[in-house]
Amino acid sequence: MNVQQVTRKIRTTAQTQEDTDWVVSEQAIALVYNGISHAVMMATPADLHDFALGFSLNEGIIERATDLLDFEINEQAHGIELDITLNSRQFSALKTKRRSLAGNSGCGLCGVESLAQTIKQRPSLPQSSLVSLAACKTAIEQFTDKQALKKKTGGVHGAAFCSTTTGEILLIREDVGRHNALDKLIGALAKTNSELTLSAGFILVSSRASYEMVDKTIASGIPHLVSMSAATSKAIDWAKQHQLNLIAFANSNRQVIYADNSNA
Amino acid sequence: MNVQQVTRKIRTTAQTQEDTDWVVSEQAIALVYNGISHAVMMATPADLHDFALGFSLNEGIIERATDLLDFEINEQAHGIELDITLNSRQFSALKTKRRSLAGNSGCGLCGVESLAQTIKQRPSLPQSSLVSLAACKTAIEQFTDKQALKKKTGGVHGAAFCSTTTGEILLIREDVGRHNALDKLIGALAKTNSELTLSAGFILVSSRASYEMVDKTIASGIPHLVSMSAATSKAIDWAKQHQLNLIAFANSNRQVIYADNSNA
Repeated sequence: MNVQQVTRKIRTTAQTQEDTDWVVSEQAIALVYNGISHAVMMATPADLHDFALGFSLNEGIIERATDLLDFEINEQAHGIELDITLNSRQFSALKTKRRSLAGNSGCGLCGVESLAQTIKQRPSLPQSSLVSLAACKTAIEQFTDKQALKKKTGGVHGAAFCSTTTGEILLIREDVGRHNALDKLIGALAKTNSELTLSAGFILVSSRASYEMVDKTIASGIPHLVSMSAATSKAIDWAKQHQLNLIAFANSNRQVIYADNSNA
Repeated sequence: MNVQQVTRKIRTTAQTQEDTDWVVSEQAIALVYNGISHAVMMATPADLHDFALGFSLNEGIIERATDLLDFEINEQAHGIELDITLNSRQFSALKTKRRSLAGNSGCGLCGVESLAQTIKQRPSLPQSSLVSLAACKTAIEQFTDKQALKKKTGGVHGAAFCSTTTGEILLIREDVGRHNALDKLIGALAKTNSELTLSAGFILVSSRASYEMVDKTIASGIPHLVSMSAATSKAIDWAKQHQLNLIAFANSNRQVIYADNSNA
């Protein structure tokens, strides 16, 4: 359950070959305290008791391991619910904190409702041919040089919008957070929409392709996401469901194709 | 403002040398819509209008760039406030969504309050000597082999608890998310607390050392964080303020020391 087997295509300058491989599982995990959903995190469903305990400690919800009185894992349609029982003193402190934090009325949603809300409604993208190996190669080769903040500090993610025809990088944004870098790129594209046709480009990211990175790409109407790192199980499923072409572990001469909707 | 200059020490098997370098800036950024704070993100303060626009589009708060009527950047004591004005139709939709999302009363906090709440109160760690180069080397050399999910999928982060004396990895957890991996490790440590003395160990992570990674380490009472990737400005400041020893860009034979509290 922590890994998932997928069929993929490995493309090199010499050939394209299909094989099967393991990808890491990514699921929506709701942390539910005494029946009230507190947070939904995208995570790997391994060591969930450790996760509940460490999250609760780090967020200051409990002070020691023994404050967590009971723990149950409940699989739901849209993810996994971690049902945590706190003693009444800690639970009362959490309710007070939630009220002050977010002007919250104190009656949160249940875990099932929270998990269902993570599933966004997105129309599928129109069918489109896969970006060529040559275009990916050009974009990847330009990427390092265009990441100004990365060159200076080594500590940031980049997201670039590239021409599907030539692979040329047309726009790039950087941030310490990979989601922020992609948000910035999509924001910048929205401003220059008149000049750049979104459906004629692809997104190249330095980071892993998780569910949320795939979802943001679909939401923006760009038909391809190319990641220089790995893809998660949920990212691949979501890409296939919405006709996004998803390429991961991309370098100049070798790319792994996880979702190819050119023949969909 | 997107980068910050820091003094650091580079340690190799041959020598330890001080120099100055640039690190990427990480700050709390509050997204405030029509006066109501919606979210606080840790981000790099570059291209903030693009960020506001892309975040608003990707979260479905606006439908097109022109829905964002006005935008202002306001620096506050604890971060940056992005003051966004939506048209009344979009703002009304956002308020309805917030109510249904979190049982929210609809009257959120202002940006200044939200930013202030990101500053956690943590006691400083007791002073402790820096982990040796030899101990870091042992831990880093054991790391790859112990990351079972990483070996199988290539797509996960690892967090390990290691002996300060020998560098041996005593416990390791993995997840698609770097925060989750650290939460899991800290949760697992809390359960085995009797056997493992937290102050006699250090944390090794495969990911960047951001503010939140540093904060979780301090909260757990472990005096050292060693990252195989970069450190951010806020991570370094927070480590220094709380006597955490912070090492980044760590490999077997070379480590960059950003916070050394052994002589504090």
